Amino acid sequence: MAQKIIIDCDPGLDDAVALLLAHGNPDIELLAVTTVVGNQTLEKVTRNALAVARVANITGVPFAAGSVRPLVRKIETAAHIHGESGLGGVTLPEPAFSLDPRHAVQLLIDTIMEHPPGTITLVPTAGLTNIALAARLEPRIVERVKQVVLMGGGYHTGNLTPVAEFNIRIDPEAAHIVFNEKWPLTMVGLDLTHQAVATPQVMAKIAAVGTNPAKFVVDLLEFYGNSCREAEGFEHPPVHDPCAVAYVIDPTIMTVRKAPVDIELNGKLTRGMTVTDFRGSAALEGCHTQVAVKLDHGRFWDLVIDALTRIGEVEL
Amino acid sequence: MAQKIIIDCDPGLDDAVALLLAHGNPDIELLAVTTVVGNQTLEKVTRNALAVARVANITGVPFAAGSVRPLVRKIETAAHIHGESGLGGVTLPEPAFSLDPRHAVQLLIDTIMEHPPGTITLVPTAGLTNIALAARLEPRIVERVKQVVLMGGGYHTGNLTPVAEFNIRIDPEAAHIVFNEKWPLTMVGLDLTHQAVATPQVMAKIAAVGTNPAKFVVDLLEFYGNSCREAEGFEHPPVHDPCAVAYVIDPTIMTVRKAPVDIELNGKLTRGMTVTDFRGSAALEGCHTQVAVKLDHGRFWDLVIDALTRIGEVEL
Amino acid sequence: MAQKIIIDCDPGLDDAVALLLAHGNPDIELLAVTTVVGNQTLEKVTRNALAVARVANITGVPFAAGSVRPLVRKIETAAHIHGESGLGGVTLPEPAFSLDPRHAVQLLIDTIMEHPPGTITLVPTAGLTNIALAARLEPRIVERVKQVVLMGGGYHTGNLTPVAEFNIRIDPEAAHIVFNEKWPLTMVGLDLTHQAVATPQVMAKIAAVGTNPAKFVVDLLEFYGNSCREAEGFEHPPVHDPCAVAYVIDPTIMTVRKAPVDIELNGKLTRGMTVTDFRGSAALEGCHTQVAVKLDHGRFWDLVIDALTRIGEVEL
Amino acid sequence: MAQKIIIDCDPGLDDAVALLLAHGNPDIELLAVTTVVGNQTLEKVTRNALAVARVANITGVPFAAGSVRPLVRKIETAAHIHGESGLGGVTLPEPAFSLDPRHAVQLLIDTIMEHPPGTITLVPTAGLTNIALAARLEPRIVERVKQVVLMGGGYHTGNLTPVAEFNIRIDPEAAHIVFNEKWPLTMVGLDLTHQAVATPQVMAKIAAVGTNPAKFVVDLLEFYGNSCREAEGFEHPPVHDPCAVAYVIDPTIMTVRKAPVDIELNGKLTRGMTVTDFRGSAALEGCHTQVAVKLDHGRFWDLVIDALTRIGEVEL
Repeated sequence: MAQKIIIDCDPGLDDAVALLLAHGNPDIELLAVTTVVGNQTLEKVTRNALAVARVANITGVPFAAGSVRPLVRKIETAAHIHGESGLGGVTLPEPAFSLDPRHAVQLLIDTIMEHPPGTITLVPTAGLTNIALAARLEPRIVERVKQVVLMGGGYHTGNLTPVAEFNIRIDPEAAHIVFNEKWPLTMVGLDLTHQAVATPQVMAKIAAVGTNPAKFVVDLLEFYGNSCREAEGFEHPPVHDPCAVAYVIDPTIMTVRKAPVDIELNGKLTRGMTVTDFRGSAALEGCHTQVAVKLDHGRFWDLVIDALTRIGEVEL
Repeated sequence: MAQKIIIDCDPGLDDAVALLLAHGNPDIELLAVTTVVGNQTLEKVTRNALAVARVANITGVPFAAGSVRPLVRKIETAAHIHGESGLGGVTLPEPAFSLDPRHAVQLLIDTIMEHPPGTITLVPTAGLTNIALAARLEPRIVERVKQVVLMGGGYHTGNLTPVAEFNIRIDPEAAHIVFNEKWPLTMVGLDLTHQAVATPQVMAKIAAVGTNPAKFVVDLLEFYGNSCREAEGFEHPPVHDPCAVAYVIDPTIMTVRKAPVDIELNGKLTRGMTVTDFRGSAALEGCHTQVAVKLDHGRFWDLVIDALTRIGEVEL
Repeated sequence: MAQKIIIDCDPGLDDAVALLLAHGNPDIELLAVTTVVGNQTLEKVTRNALAVARVANITGVPFAAGSVRPLVRKIETAAHIHGESGLGGVTLPEPAFSLDPRHAVQLLIDTIMEHPPGTITLVPTAGLTNIALAARLEPRIVERVKQVVLMGGGYHTGNLTPVAEFNIRIDPEAAHIVFNEKWPLTMVGLDLTHQAVATPQVMAKIAAVGTNPAKFVVDLLEFYGNSCREAEGFEHPPVHDPCAVAYVIDPTIMTVRKAPVDIELNGKLTRGMTVTDFRGSAALEGCHTQVAVKLDHGRFWDLVIDALTRIGEVEL
Repeated sequence: MAQKIIIDCDPGLDDAVALLLAHGNPDIELLAVTTVVGNQTLEKVTRNALAVARVANITGVPFAAGSVRPLVRKIETAAHIHGESGLGGVTLPEPAFSLDPRHAVQLLIDTIMEHPPGTITLVPTAGLTNIALAARLEPRIVERVKQVVLMGGGYHTGNLTPVAEFNIRIDPEAAHIVFNEKWPLTMVGLDLTHQAVATPQVMAKIAAVGTNPAKFVVDLLEFYGNSCREAEGFEHPPVHDPCAVAYVIDPTIMTVRKAPVDIELNGKLTRGMTVTDFRGSAALEGCHTQVAVKLDHGRFWDLVIDALTRIGEVEL
């Protein structure tokens, strides 16, 4: 049976790939897509989400716009990575449908409460503002979702600061809320996603699919590769967000490790760090968090390419 | 024309007096009452709010329950002051009506958005969780409300810690959100409310009203007086929350001073402090916050007694 | 019997007046003067201290230079108040003697350990780096000094930030050390020193003394008055540092209040605040700290003018 | 030419091995040993240091006692690891000589200033209180020492907390001072020292040396092994402190990586973390810190056993 998921995202180049993977994979049922300020302003990432839907021919799925700013901190976007549009390097088609009139937080709550308990996986690939607000507005969702599988954080790796990752750092209070609620939570952080590099071989295979959606992915990964090279010193770009979707599709694609994770709110050097306790003395009984450690690179990209192949050609 | 207000509260002994004052005063139109965890659990303060409505014969006003916990911090209640019930010392009648089905945050948003801009004053007398969530869920309310007049904080005075007041300290992130939004905000803090002491003379005057609601107030102030004496060393209890309502009724009842106010989130000794800049060098142009400084004690209690007199007898 | 004191200072305009008051008053025996980075670099404040000694004809007292920087934080000086030289507005004479070869911290320790227990009052009028280092290097000094009477902090008043005073803020870790050691400590903070304003009447009386040292004070207070007016909005300058010396001479010149005081190290808005607990519930038994509240302005300035009169003429 | 070193330590079981390694190795000239509160009180670790000197027949080297407490934080010792005596599991002989009368900080300063620039390596294997005080009391030592090679911290590993190591966590302000001074600094942290496990094979080789000092090491490592097993879940104990000495003897025994390191002072979960910037974007030019990454386990223990062999028999 397909896994029902809601993706909360801020497209964002790698978010776009995550949406394509979720849409094209037969084991995923995409229930809703919600957007949140992050890689770019809410307005831009929401427009981008609708454009990706058009590119991938996603239909019948509600898309809703959410938070325009983090809970407490000032807005910090990532134009240096994702470009001024938030989807730098690609031409964006006109959206084919309109947004759901509800606030993303309301769509999240409604969707979760309307489905049977234990059936929905939340897949946040952005700052956690929407998810945190939903958990505070309707606390019953915490027991009701099956699990949270999020792209964000890193137990030994940072990007926005030496030890903090962008999605967590931009709204650490929201992350604190999400990581401290007792739902099963898998952190697919930079430690894992830095293994998901789009090598030239991968790029070639994607290009070989030959469709418009595949071309779209190639274009955005080329832009993304340049950004990551210049700003972060990567030879080939790590494609973060689809890793979280891939884990929902097939958990055997990565090794995970159970460990308590909490969010640092006060540190001058460490604010937004996902503090992970790997000590032998850590209390693992009742621990509801786990972190992704090792990726099967080949199988991961096979999933992406398979999804693109299944999506097939889409006229733009 | 009467001032339209929404009271967001956690009754709480002094919250009860604030509700009575708002209901009994002819210059106030009470649009809604929302509740939030604080002096006691959400369940208890909500039951208490409905009981106060019954005591004061408040009808036709929606009451809605809100947040069960602060945004980020763990729950901290004030049973040592307000008793196990949250309304220690009084017998609580059965409520006469049911709660509005909406979440307090939704009721806040709906009420504000349905009324013309610039007409509604928010009067929070509790932790600011609901107000903060409303501002994040529907950012347009910030420009739409007339002003926020809140009981909380203190520029030179603390109670839960040496420099932090209970309502702010229990949810400093929410307070940070509320104080940093650009609506006109008046902080009626401990510096002011410590002047609103219920002296024996005041108690005698209230008792002389001779009605059930007045008897209710006498009973709760006696319990409150004992709590404040034992826990905080006050000779007579300062009755905080109605001060905020009184300021809406008649701003000339207190002197206020314009000053920038911000909330400390990180301090070990100062978390939840309402840091107020009284320096000669402080930037007052465009400053949207002011703090209450000096209370006219006589006129304040006259307002309370007048409200009780107008409410008249209520059969319980 | 005269009070034996050591002044640890960073002259600094008001430090200069403190030195003159200590030297000219017959009830003070000045045992040593130590300097520390603060209002200006160590080099400048040390040169200034020697120049003040020359102006006031202080002889036979060892002067030693101390810390070039705070314990942990980066250097922050106050050229906007005290000028580029640290003694703006006056002509500095050549020193008449050389520095003691010892580090200020060593001179502090040696002097305290060589005198009988309970005889020496430390009078810091600058950042507390030297005093903190001395307490860590030779912990026995804490029991051995009679008391610490310091200019710094403020229970309700800040200058460098809304709630932090310069001397504490520039080295909060040192202040934390000094305030937490169990010696009797009197904080003569901004709440008190803002009452020590040099009014035109005061200035006229000082000028009337007619000597070179008095002329020196008039010149520096005029410069200081301009600084305080422009940077902080004062009509007449508050002359902070001599207040601490005045308290040692005659404690009846001000009212004080016993209260626990601690230093905030972590706050974003409050770092360096002298957090004072005035709550009725504060534990005062065994409390070793008190704060200065109310100054007798007339008697304070009489002391300063008397000291100048006693110093008499000094040829420069 | 032998490397001149000063060991600043808190023996402490692994400190004892570090002292033995330094004394027995022909490429090390031990100039002084200083002690500091840490694994146990200053009194106990100082007595232990002298006892180790007796066991190893160290003579002609000044030993001096230093700080009784950290700079700012309260004392936190490690009796759960090192026993009530700080050298649990071994019988301590009477010291053969007395302490140098100077404070450890003074001995550090004197020794460094008396030797030619660039000749002395500081090897702290404890909290950094003494080293920090020395740098503040005599700033010229920073340029004068050759390097600092310390056991402490961990870029990805903690013990006292999930991300902080004991020596740094117990005095983070001191560590902040030491890591921010511009001397060449090598952090031999838990990431490295967790590789220095005393396996049964290692224990057997040490026992085979057959002398009293070797027997002493076996006894203390057995006690240590039990502590580490019970408190931290290690199968065999990692022997931290001699790793720093081993790096001075032969830097090729471990791989190191240049990276900026700073100390978190404010974090609630991360205070005392050695925040290390491994990002591709980190500024390595002018970077004065490096971290130890990979240990050659065999060659490390060969050094220890060789030192014990050279020390030979010592009558106790």
